[in-house]
Amino acid sequence: MQPKPPKGTRIAHIGIAVKSISASLPFFSEILGLPEFPVDDSDGARIAAVSAGDSLIELLEAQDESSPIGKFLAKRGPGIHHICFAVDDIGATLEKCRAAGIRLIDETPRLGAEGKRIAFLHPGSTQGILVELSEH
Amino acid sequence: MQPKPPKGTRIAHIGIAVKSISASLPFFSEILGLPEFPVDDSDGARIAAVSAGDSLIELLEAQDESSPIGKFLAKRGPGIHHICFAVDDIGATLEKCRAAGIRLIDETPRLGAEGKRIAFLHPGSTQGILVELSEH
Repeated sequence: MQPKPPKGTRIAHIGIAVKSISASLPFFSEILGLPEFPVDDSDGARIAAVSAGDSLIELLEAQDESSPIGKFLAKRGPGIHHICFAVDDIGATLEKCRAAGIRLIDETPRLGAEGKRIAFLHPGSTQGILVELSEH
Repeated sequence: MQPKPPKGTRIAHIGIAVKSISASLPFFSEILGLPEFPVDDSDGARIAAVSAGDSLIELLEAQDESSPIGKFLAKRGPGIHHICFAVDDIGATLEKCRAAGIRLIDETPRLGAEGKRIAFLHPGSTQGILVELSEH
C-alpha cells in the first residue's frame, strides 16, 4: 500500500521544560496575550498550555526529579524539551524515517496522553531536537 | 495612548542551528512533507525554511565560525536557536516586557532582514529560550 502524503503536517506543540509554571506562564499568557488551553498532565509533568495560532506551547514542570522533565532540568536547565509535529499518517511517517536511517525511540506508535497515536524520534538524528510525531 | 492588545500573536518561526542545510532539510521537506519557503540569508547565516501551518521552520547554517550561529554551533551543537513570535504591536509588547522586568537584548525595535520591526529578549528572562519578537 502506498503511504498517503503527509499533506497536513503542522507544529502541534512545543514543549518547554520550566522550573515553575506559575513563574513562566505570565510571559506567554499576559505579555504575549496567548489564551490558556487545557491539557492533561503527562509523564510525571504538570502541564500548562497556551494556544498560538494552530500550535500549542506547553510548559512542562516536573512533578518529581526522576521524571523525564526533572532529569532534563537537572542536566540542562529550562529550555525547549521537544517539538511535536502532527502528521496525517504516523505509520507512514515512521516508515519514511526508518528508510532514511533516522533513529527511532518508538519503533511503532503508542498511545499518548490524549489518546492520539504518538512516537518519538531520537534527537541524534534530528538536529539535536527531540521530535514527537502525533497523528491528527 | 493605550497599547493595543496583542490579539494575533502566533509563532512566526522556529530557528534551528544546523551544521548543514543539505543534510537537515530532507527530514522536514521530504519526510514531514513541509513545503519550502524562500527566506533571505541573514546575520552571517544561510537560511532554508519550510512552512508548517502558519509558522516557518528556519534551518540556519553558519556562513562563518564567527557568526552568531557559528558560535552557537561551536558551543552547543545543533539545536533550536530561537523562537520568533509575531505580535500586533511590538512597541507595546516590549513595554510590557520591560514592566515585567524581562531583560531585553534590543531596548527598541530594529529592522530585521525582511523589513519587519524585530527585537530580541534575553533567554535568561524567558526560560532559557532566545525569543525574537516581530511585528506582523
